Amino acid sequence: MTATNDSAARERIHRTAAELFARNGYHGTGMSELSEAVGLGRGALYYHIVSKESVLYAITAGAIEQLIKPSDLIVQGDGTAEARIRELARVLMRNIAELSNQWTVFFREHSSLTGQWHEDLMHKREHYEGLWWQLLQEGVASGEFGPVPQIVTKGVLGMFNYSYLWLRVDGLSTPEDVADLFCDVLLGGLRATE
Amino acid sequence: MTATNDSAARERIHRTAAELFARNGYHGTGMSELSEAVGLGRGALYYHIVSKESVLYAITAGAIEQLIKPSDLIVQGDGTAEARIRELARVLMRNIAELSNQWTVFFREHSSLTGQWHEDLMHKREHYEGLWWQLLQEGVASGEFGPVPQIVTKGVLGMFNYSYLWLRVDGLSTPEDVADLFCDVLLGGLRATE
Repeated sequence: MTATNDSAARERIHRTAAELFARNGYHGTGMSELSEAVGLGRGALYYHIVSKESVLYAITAGAIEQLIKPSDLIVQGDGTAEARIRELARVLMRNIAELSNQWTVFFREHSSLTGQWHEDLMHKREHYEGLWWQLLQEGVASGEFGPVPQIVTKGVLGMFNYSYLWLRVDGLSTPEDVADLFCDVLLGGLRATE
Repeated sequence: MTATNDSAARERIHRTAAELFARNGYHGTGMSELSEAVGLGRGALYYHIVSKESVLYAITAGAIEQLIKPSDLIVQGDGTAEARIRELARVLMRNIAELSNQWTVFFREHSSLTGQWHEDLMHKREHYEGLWWQLLQEGVASGEFGPVPQIVTKGVLGMFNYSYLWLRVDGLSTPEDVADLFCDVLLGGLRATE
Protein backbone atom coordinates (compact mmCIF):
# COMPACT_ATOMS: atom_id res chain seq x y z
CA MET A 1 0.00 0.00 0.00
CA THR A 2 1.19 3.53 -0.69
CA ALA A 3 1.27 6.31 1.88
CA THR A 4 -1.59 8.05 0.06
CA ASN A 5 -3.74 4.93 0.11
CA ASP A 6 -2.96 4.49 3.77
CA SER A 7 -4.02 7.98 4.63
CA ALA A 8 -7.19 7.68 2.53
CA ALA A 9 -8.01 4.40 4.26
CA ARG A 10 -7.44 5.90 7.68
CA GLU A 11 -9.68 8.82 6.82
CA ARG A 12 -12.42 6.47 5.66
CA ILE A 13 -12.13 4.46 8.89
CA HIS A 14 -12.42 7.63 10.98
CA ARG A 15 -15.40 8.89 8.98
CA THR A 16 -17.22 5.59 9.27
CA ALA A 17 -16.39 5.27 12.96
CA ALA A 18 -17.70 8.81 13.59
CA GLU A 19 -21.00 7.78 11.97
CA LEU A 20 -21.24 4.60 14.06
CA PHE A 21 -20.20 6.25 17.33
CA ALA A 22 -22.63 9.12 16.72
CA ARG A 23 -25.48 6.68 16.08
CA ASN A 24 -24.81 3.92 18.60
CA GLY A 25 -22.39 5.44 21.06
CA TYR A 26 -18.70 4.67 21.53
CA HIS A 27 -19.32 1.86 24.01
CA GLY A 28 -22.20 0.62 21.86
CA THR A 29 -19.98 0.13 18.81
CA GLY A 30 -17.81 -2.96 18.54
CA MET A 31 -14.63 -3.21 16.48
CA SER A 32 -16.22 -6.05 14.49
CA GLU A 33 -19.01 -3.65 13.49
CA LEU A 34 -16.48 -1.04 12.39
CA SER A 35 -14.49 -3.69 10.57
CA GLU A 36 -17.62 -4.75 8.70
CA ALA A 37 -18.77 -1.20 7.94
CA VAL A 38 -15.45 -0.24 6.35
CA GLY A 39 -15.17 -3.59 4.58
CA LEU A 40 -11.79 -4.50 6.08
CA GLY A 41 -10.87 -7.62 7.97
CA ARG A 42 -9.75 -7.24 11.57
CA GLY A 43 -6.08 -7.57 10.62
CA ALA A 44 -6.30 -4.97 7.87
CA LEU A 45 -8.22 -2.64 10.20
CA TYR A 46 -5.53 -2.91 12.87
CA TYR A 47 -2.91 -2.20 10.25
CA HIS A 48 -4.40 1.30 10.03
CA ILE A 49 -5.39 2.01 13.62
CA VAL A 50 -3.91 1.37 17.04
CA SER A 51 -7.09 0.83 19.07
CA LYS A 52 -10.72 1.83 19.33
CA GLU A 53 -9.70 4.60 21.71
CA SER A 54 -7.16 5.95 19.21
CA VAL A 55 -10.02 6.23 16.71
CA LEU A 56 -12.14 8.14 19.24
CA TYR A 57 -9.21 10.48 19.83
CA ALA A 58 -8.62 10.96 16.10
CA ILE A 59 -12.31 11.82 15.55
CA THR A 60 -12.61 14.31 18.40
CA ALA A 61 -9.14 15.87 18.19
CA GLY A 62 -9.49 16.11 14.41
CA ALA A 63 -12.69 18.15 14.73
CA ILE A 64 -11.27 20.63 17.20
CA GLU A 65 -7.93 20.92 15.37
CA GLN A 66 -9.78 21.84 12.18
CA LEU A 67 -11.51 24.51 14.21
CA ILE A 68 -8.48 25.85 16.04
CA LYS A 69 -6.34 26.37 12.95
CA PRO A 70 -8.43 29.11 11.26
CA SER A 71 -9.62 30.46 14.63
CA ASP A 72 -6.06 31.13 15.81
CA LEU A 73 -5.51 33.20 12.66
CA ILE A 74 -8.73 35.15 13.15
CA VAL A 75 -7.90 36.04 16.74
CA GLN A 76 -4.35 37.13 15.79
CA GLY A 77 -5.73 39.17 12.90
CA ASP A 78 -6.71 42.81 12.64
CA GLY A 79 -10.12 44.29 13.18
CA THR A 80 -12.34 45.09 16.12
CA ALA A 81 -13.07 42.43 18.71
CA GLU A 82 -16.64 42.42 17.43
CA ALA A 83 -15.60 41.78 13.83
CA ARG A 84 -13.30 38.95 14.86
CA ILE A 85 -15.97 37.41 17.11
CA ARG A 86 -18.34 37.41 14.15
CA GLU A 87 -15.71 35.65 12.07
CA LEU A 88 -14.97 33.12 14.84
CA ALA A 89 -18.69 32.35 15.12
CA ARG A 90 -19.06 31.81 11.36
CA VAL A 91 -16.11 29.42 11.28
CA LEU A 92 -17.47 27.56 14.31
CA MET A 93 -20.96 27.10 12.91
CA ARG A 94 -19.65 26.02 9.50
CA ASN A 95 -17.32 23.54 11.20
CA ILE A 96 -20.09 22.10 13.41
CA ALA A 97 -22.46 21.75 10.46
CA GLU A 98 -19.87 20.07 8.25
CA LEU A 99 -18.48 17.75 10.91
CA SER A 100 -21.75 17.03 12.69
CA ASN A 101 -20.95 13.36 13.37
CA GLN A 102 -17.55 14.25 14.76
CA TRP A 103 -19.02 16.93 17.04
CA THR A 104 -21.77 14.62 18.21
CA VAL A 105 -19.07 12.16 19.20
CA PHE A 106 -17.00 14.96 20.74
CA PHE A 107 -19.77 16.23 22.99
CA ARG A 108 -21.18 12.83 23.90
CA GLU A 109 -18.04 10.78 24.26
CA HIS A 110 -15.11 12.99 25.23
CA SER A 111 -15.26 11.59 28.73
CA SER A 112 -14.81 8.08 27.32
CA LEU A 113 -11.21 9.01 26.53
CA THR A 114 -8.71 8.14 29.24
CA GLY A 115 -5.32 9.35 30.46
CA GLN A 116 -3.19 11.29 28.00
CA TRP A 117 -5.81 11.15 25.23
CA HIS A 118 -8.34 12.83 27.46
CA GLU A 119 -5.85 15.35 28.79
CA ASP A 120 -4.78 16.33 25.27
CA LEU A 121 -8.35 16.80 24.12
CA MET A 122 -9.29 18.92 27.13
CA HIS A 123 -6.16 20.98 26.53
CA LYS A 124 -7.30 21.68 22.96
CA ARG A 125 -10.77 22.58 24.18
CA GLU A 126 -9.32 25.01 26.71
CA HIS A 127 -7.15 26.52 24.03
CA TYR A 128 -10.20 27.10 21.85
CA GLU A 129 -12.27 28.47 24.73
CA GLY A 130 -9.32 30.76 25.51
CA LEU A 131 -9.59 32.33 22.05
CA TRP A 132 -13.15 33.49 22.78
CA TRP A 133 -12.17 34.72 26.21
CA GLN A 134 -9.26 36.64 24.69
CA LEU A 135 -11.49 38.45 22.19
CA LEU A 136 -14.06 39.21 24.87
CA GLN A 137 -11.34 40.75 27.01
CA GLU A 138 -9.92 42.68 24.06
CA GLY A 139 -13.39 44.06 23.42
CA VAL A 140 -13.62 45.17 27.04
CA ALA A 141 -10.15 46.74 26.89
CA SER A 142 -10.97 48.63 23.67
CA GLY A 143 -14.23 49.90 25.13
CA GLU A 144 -16.35 47.97 22.62
CA PHE A 145 -17.99 45.92 25.39
CA GLY A 146 -19.00 46.54 28.97
CA PRO A 147 -17.47 44.35 31.69
CA VAL A 148 -17.67 40.61 30.86
CA PRO A 149 -17.27 37.99 33.61
CA GLN A 150 -15.30 34.97 32.39
CA ILE A 151 -18.19 32.56 32.90
CA VAL A 152 -20.02 34.35 30.08
CA THR A 153 -17.57 32.58 27.74
CA LYS A 154 -19.31 29.32 28.69
CA GLY A 155 -22.69 30.78 27.80
CA VAL A 156 -21.41 32.13 24.50
CA LEU A 157 -19.86 28.81 23.55
CA GLY A 158 -23.02 27.00 24.63
CA MET A 159 -25.07 29.16 22.32
CA PHE A 160 -23.02 27.98 19.36
CA ASN A 161 -21.85 24.51 20.41
CA TYR A 162 -25.31 23.25 21.27
CA SER A 163 -26.12 23.57 17.58
CA TYR A 164 -24.44 20.19 16.91
CA LEU A 165 -27.87 18.84 17.85
CA TRP A 166 -29.79 20.62 15.11
CA LEU A 167 -27.55 22.54 12.67
CA ARG A 168 -27.04 20.87 9.29
CA VAL A 169 -25.26 22.02 6.14
CA ASP A 170 -28.45 21.58 4.10
CA GLY A 171 -30.74 23.28 6.65
CA LEU A 172 -33.05 26.22 5.94
CA SER A 173 -30.42 28.75 7.03
CA THR A 174 -26.72 28.52 6.23
CA PRO A 175 -24.43 28.04 9.23
CA GLU A 176 -23.11 31.54 8.56
CA ASP A 177 -26.62 33.04 8.67
CA VAL A 178 -27.24 31.38 12.02
CA ALA A 179 -23.87 32.60 13.32
CA ASP A 180 -24.74 36.16 12.26
CA LEU A 181 -28.14 36.04 13.95
CA PHE A 182 -26.70 34.71 17.20
CA CYS A 183 -23.95 37.33 17.07
CA ASP A 184 -26.56 40.08 16.69
CA VAL A 185 -28.12 39.05 20.00
CA LEU A 186 -24.83 38.31 21.71
CA LEU A 187 -22.94 41.42 20.68
CA GLY A 188 -25.95 43.62 21.36
CA GLY A 189 -25.96 42.19 24.86
CA LEU A 190 -22.24 42.63 25.40
CA ARG A 191 -22.48 46.28 24.40
CA ALA A 192 -25.54 46.65 26.58
CA THR A 193 -23.80 45.37 29.74
CA GLU A 194 -21.92 48.68 29.98
CA MET B 1 -43.37 -4.52 49.94
CA THR B 2 -45.46 -1.41 50.50
CA ALA B 3 -46.23 1.17 47.82
CA THR B 4 -43.92 3.65 49.56
CA ASN B 5 -41.06 1.16 49.62
CA ASP B 6 -41.67 0.38 45.97
CA SER B 7 -41.52 3.98 44.94
CA ALA B 8 -38.39 4.60 47.05
CA ALA B 9 -36.73 1.56 45.48
CA ARG B 10 -37.65 2.72 41.99
CA GLU B 11 -36.25 6.15 42.72
CA ARG B 12 -33.01 4.64 43.96
CA ILE B 13 -32.74 2.48 40.84
CA HIS B 14 -33.26 5.51 38.60
CA ARG B 15 -30.74 7.61 40.52
CA THR B 16 -28.12 4.86 40.36
CA ALA B 17 -28.81 4.17 36.70
CA ALA B 18 -28.45 7.90 35.90
CA GLU B 19 -25.01 7.82 37.55
CA LEU B 20 -23.94 4.73 35.61
CA PHE B 21 -25.36 5.90 32.27
CA ALA B 22 -23.74 9.34 32.73
CA ARG B 23 -20.38 7.72 33.47
CA ASN B 24 -20.28 4.77 31.08
CA GLY B 25 -23.01 5.51 28.56
CA TYR B 26 -26.37 3.80 28.14
CA HIS B 27 -25.02 1.15 25.79
CA GLY B 28 -21.95 0.78 27.98
CA THR B 29 -23.98 -0.13 31.07
CA GLY B 30 -25.28 -3.65 31.51
CA MET B 31 -28.30 -4.63 33.59
CA SER B 32 -26.05 -6.85 35.70
CA GLU B 33 -23.98 -3.77 36.58
CA LEU B 34 -27.11 -1.87 37.56
CA SER B 35 -28.36 -4.85 39.53
CA GLU B 36 -25.07 -4.99 41.42
CA ALA B 37 -24.88 -1.22 42.01
CA VAL B 38 -28.35 -1.08 43.56
CA GLY B 39 -27.77 -4.30 45.50
CA LEU B 40 -30.77 -6.11 44.06
CA GLY B 41 -30.87 -9.47 42.34
CA ARG B 42 -32.01 -9.58 38.74
CA GLY B 43 -35.49 -10.80 39.71
CA ALA B 44 -35.96 -8.07 42.31
CA LEU B 45 -34.69 -5.45 39.87
CA TYR B 46 -37.19 -6.50 37.22
CA TYR B 47 -39.95 -6.38 39.82
CA HIS B 48 -39.39 -2.61 39.86
CA ILE B 49 -38.60 -1.84 36.24
CA VAL B 50 -39.84 -2.99 32.85
CA SER B 51 -36.62 -2.78 30.84
CA LYS B 52 -33.36 -0.87 30.53
CA GLU B 53 -35.05 1.42 28.02
CA SER B 54 -37.86 2.16 30.47
CA VAL B 55 -35.19 3.29 32.94
CA LEU B 56 -33.62 5.57 30.32
CA TYR B 57 -37.04 7.04 29.64
CA ALA B 58 -37.76 7.52 33.35
CA ILE B 59 -34.42 9.33 33.84
CA THR B 60 -34.75 11.68 30.88
CA ALA B 61 -38.51 12.29 31.02
CA GLY B 62 -38.25 12.78 34.79
CA ALA B 63 -35.69 15.56 34.37
CA ILE B 64 -37.70 17.48 31.80
CA GLU B 65 -41.01 16.97 33.63
CA GLN B 66 -39.48 18.48 36.77
CA LEU B 67 -38.48 21.42 34.60
CA ILE B 68 -41.76 21.84 32.73
CA LYS B 69 -43.98 21.92 35.82
CA PRO B 70 -42.66 25.17 37.37
CA SER B 71 -41.86 26.64 33.93
CA ASP B 72 -45.47 26.30 32.75
CA LEU B 73 -46.56 28.29 35.80
CA ILE B 74 -43.94 30.99 35.21
CA VAL B 75 -44.98 31.48 31.59
CA GLN B 76 -48.67 31.64 32.52
CA GLY B 77 -47.91 34.08 35.32
CA ASP B 78 -47.92 37.87 35.42
CA GLY B 79 -44.98 40.17 34.79
CA THR B 80 -43.05 41.39 31.79
CA ALA B 81 -41.62 38.89 29.30
CA GLU B 82 -38.18 39.88 30.56
CA ALA B 83 -39.05 39.14 34.21
CA ARG B 84 -40.53 35.76 33.31
CA ILE B 85 -37.54 34.87 31.11
CA ARG B 86 -35.27 35.63 34.05
CA GLU B 87 -37.36 33.34 36.23
CA LEU B 88 -37.39 30.60 33.58
CA ALA B 89 -33.60 30.80 33.32
CA ARG B 90 -33.12 30.54 37.08
CA VAL B 91 -35.34 27.47 37.30
CA LEU B 92 -33.54 25.89 34.34
CA MET B 93 -30.03 26.42 35.75
CA ARG B 94 -31.06 25.18 39.21
CA ASN B 95 -32.64 22.11 37.63
CA ILE B 96 -29.59 21.35 35.46
CA ALA B 97 -27.21 21.76 38.42
CA GLU B 98 -29.28 19.55 40.72
CA LEU B 99 -30.03 16.85 38.17
CA SER B 100 -26.68 16.92 36.40
CA ASN B 101 -26.49 13.14 35.88
CA GLN B 102 -30.00 13.05 34.49
CA TRP B 103 -29.27 15.91 32.09
CA THR B 104 -25.99 14.35 31.00
CA VAL B 105 -27.97 11.23 30.13
CA PHE B 106 -30.68 13.33 28.49
CA PHE B 107 -28.31 15.16 26.16
CA ARG B 108 -26.07 12.21 25.40
CA GLU B 109 -28.58 9.41 25.15
CA HIS B 110 -31.97 10.74 24.08
CA SER B 111 -31.43 9.26 20.65
CA SER B 112 -30.97 5.81 22.23
CA LEU B 113 -34.69 5.84 23.00
CA THR B 114 -36.86 4.23 20.34
CA GLY B 115 -40.44 4.47 19.09
CA GLN B 116 -43.02 5.89 21.48
CA TRP B 117 -40.46 6.56 24.22
CA HIS B 118 -38.44 8.75 21.90
CA GLU B 119 -41.50 10.47 20.49
CA ASP B 120 -42.80 11.29 23.96
CA LEU B 121 -39.47 12.72 25.07
CA MET B 122 -39.11 14.89 21.96
CA HIS B 123 -42.68 16.08 22.50
CA LYS B 124 -41.78 17.20 26.02
CA ARG B 125 -38.65 18.92 24.75
CA GLU B 126 -40.68 20.76 22.11
CA HIS B 127 -43.18 21.78 24.74
CA TYR B 128 -40.38 23.22 26.87
CA GLU B 129 -38.73 24.96 23.93
CA GLY B 130 -42.18 26.36 23.08
CA LEU B 131 -42.33 28.10 26.45
CA TRP B 132 -39.20 30.12 25.65
CA TRP B 133 -40.44 30.91 22.17
CA GLN B 134 -43.77 32.04 23.63
CA LEU B 135 -42.10 34.48 26.03
CA LEU B 136 -39.79 35.77 23.30
CA GLN B 137 -42.83 36.45 21.11
CA GLU B 138 -44.71 38.08 23.98
CA GLY B 139 -41.71 40.35 24.53
CA VAL B 140 -41.77 41.32 20.86
CA ALA B 141 -45.53 41.94 20.96
CA SER B 142 -45.24 44.12 24.08
CA GLY B 143 -42.41 46.13 22.55
CA GLU B 144 -39.87 44.92 25.13
CA PHE B 145 -37.76 43.25 22.44
CA GLY B 146 -36.92 43.96 18.83
CA PRO B 147 -37.80 41.32 16.21
CA VAL B 148 -36.65 37.80 17.21
CA PRO B 149 -36.32 35.03 14.59
CA GLN B 150 -37.46 31.65 15.96
CA ILE B 151 -34.04 30.07 15.53
CA VAL B 152 -32.75 32.39 18.26
CA THR B 153 -34.67 30.15 20.70
CA LYS B 154 -32.12 27.44 19.88
CA GLY B 155 -29.24 29.76 20.70
CA VAL B 156 -30.85 30.87 23.93
CA LEU B 157 -31.50 27.30 25.05
CA GLY B 158 -27.98 26.31 24.03
CA MET B 159 -26.55 29.05 26.22
CA PHE B 160 -28.24 27.51 29.25
CA ASN B 161 -28.47 23.81 28.35
CA TYR B 162 -24.80 23.46 27.53
CA SER B 163 -24.12 24.14 31.20
CA TYR B 164 -24.88 20.48 32.03
CA LEU B 165 -21.20 20.02 31.14
CA TRP B 166 -19.83 22.36 33.79
CA LEU B 167 -22.50 23.74 36.15
CA ARG B 168 -22.59 22.15 39.61
CA VAL B 169 -24.63 22.93 42.71
CA ASP B 170 -21.46 23.44 44.75
CA GLY B 171 -19.68 25.57 42.13
CA LEU B 172 -18.21 29.03 42.71
CA SER B 173 -21.38 30.74 41.50
CA THR B 174 -24.90 29.58 42.32
CA PRO B 175 -26.96 28.39 39.35
CA GLU B 176 -29.16 31.45 39.87
CA ASP B 177 -26.15 33.80 39.68
CA VAL B 178 -25.10 32.23 36.40
CA ALA B 179 -28.66 32.47 35.07
CA ASP B 180 -28.77 36.17 35.96
CA LEU B 181 -25.43 36.87 34.25
CA PHE B 182 -26.45 35.06 31.08
CA CYS B 183 -29.80 36.87 31.10
CA ASP B 184 -28.01 40.22 31.35
CA VAL B 185 -26.22 39.49 28.07
CA LEU B 186 -29.19 37.85 26.41
CA LEU B 187 -31.83 40.40 27.32
CA GLY B 188 -29.49 43.29 26.53
CA GLY B 189 -29.09 41.74 23.09
CA LEU B 190 -32.78 41.18 22.55
CA ARG B 191 -33.52 44.80 23.41
CA ALA B 192 -30.64 45.92 21.21
CA THR B 193 -31.90 44.09 18.11
CA GLU B 194 -34.60 46.75 17.67
